[in-house]
Amino acid sequence: MSKIIVDCAISLDGYFAGEQRGPGNPMGGVSGRLHAWMMKEKAFWRRIKMEGGTEDGKDGELINEVFDRTGAYIMGKRMFEEGEVSWAEDLYEADVYVLTHEKRDPWIQKGSTRFFFINDGIESALEKARASANGKDIRIQGGAITIQEFLNAGLIDELYLHITPIFIGKGIRLFEGMDPDKYEIQVLQVDSTELTTHMHYRLIRK
Amino acid sequence: MSKIIVDCAISLDGYFAGEQRGPGNPMGGVSGRLHAWMMKEKAFWRRIKMEGGTEDGKDGELINEVFDRTGAYIMGKRMFEEGEVSWAEDLYEADVYVLTHEKRDPWIQKGSTRFFFINDGIESALEKARASANGKDIRIQGGAITIQEFLNAGLIDELYLHITPIFIGKGIRLFEGMDPDKYEIQVLQVDSTELTTHMHYRLIRK
Repeated sequence: MSKIIVDCAISLDGYFAGEQRGPGNPMGGVSGRLHAWMMKEKAFWRRIKMEGGTEDGKDGELINEVFDRTGAYIMGKRMFEEGEVSWAEDLYEADVYVLTHEKRDPWIQKGSTRFFFINDGIESALEKARASANGKDIRIQGGAITIQEFLNAGLIDELYLHITPIFIGKGIRLFEGMDPDKYEIQVLQVDSTELTTHMHYRLIRK
Repeated sequence: MSKIIVDCAISLDGYFAGEQRGPGNPMGGVSGRLHAWMMKEKAFWRRIKMEGGTEDGKDGELINEVFDRTGAYIMGKRMFEEGEVSWAEDLYEADVYVLTHEKRDPWIQKGSTRFFFINDGIESALEKARASANGKDIRIQGGAITIQEFLNAGLIDELYLHITPIFIGKGIRLFEGMDPDKYEIQVLQVDSTELTTHMHYRLIRK
């Protein structure tokens, strides 16, 4: 059965994005600092269908691990709007469900990426994503508020968290208003590399 | 030369303490959950001069490491007030400088613990702590706001952070209003145990 997973980077002070994010300023301008550990990895650039990277390291293995287990994606509208203007064609190679109030026809790309726009909530998106994933896992891609919604609904099974040793100071925190009684959380694995620390947690709903 | 160090536990969502902390409710009631990894260690109970603990594990080694390298402490007034009512006699076995607006004579305990009350700011406390530490390190003990003040003044050399896999949801975060440009931060060591993840960072002032 599909697991519901989250995989994202935060700064040491807990920020997922900076201030004033939007399509013209994705992630509030902090992505390069937060994701330096990804940017140097060939695996990352292969996955986003661009040229780049100089290394095939542990960081890249983890990038591949999460891409490989994922069969469908769910994301919030603002994250989609940030990406729509810049993502390569067929980036996700899977069905992507976008949570939005906007009515919009599916966006079917060349290849196997299809965006569906869901107007009736996270449970509905999850049900459709489950069908798309066909036994693979479902990744709640972001942004932070969408991840918080799934976390506080008790729906997340695993969390990959990359803690990048920088301070951001202001912006959007990943963990805001967490329900303290929803989960028992277990550390599955921790791997530290030069540019980040990879934490892999299992969340067991109480 | 003495290093200035911080050693504390935070929840996965970044909280150092819960809500409504005070002498009658130390750390807002979250200490047991945040510090479960300490409570089981004999080293911890030996250090606080009480009976307790069942294990001599990795968590305990780290507790000893930090106690052993520390030659003087600095803390905020509210942390002191929480501890004054409950700490064992001669807990610190060192000089402790309490940042406060209150004028108060030194509190000299039996043994080697002496509390001094400093009214003229963190640099003054640091200068006196350096003399007390006599080449050992100076630990900024807490609370969060005192640690933030030292961090943003660019004065911290090393940070031991224990990330406990729980959500607290509300209270006092360790990292609030961090200056994003003050330090280059390097990961020195990461050790994961069942109940927490120990992160050890070097902070290099830019």
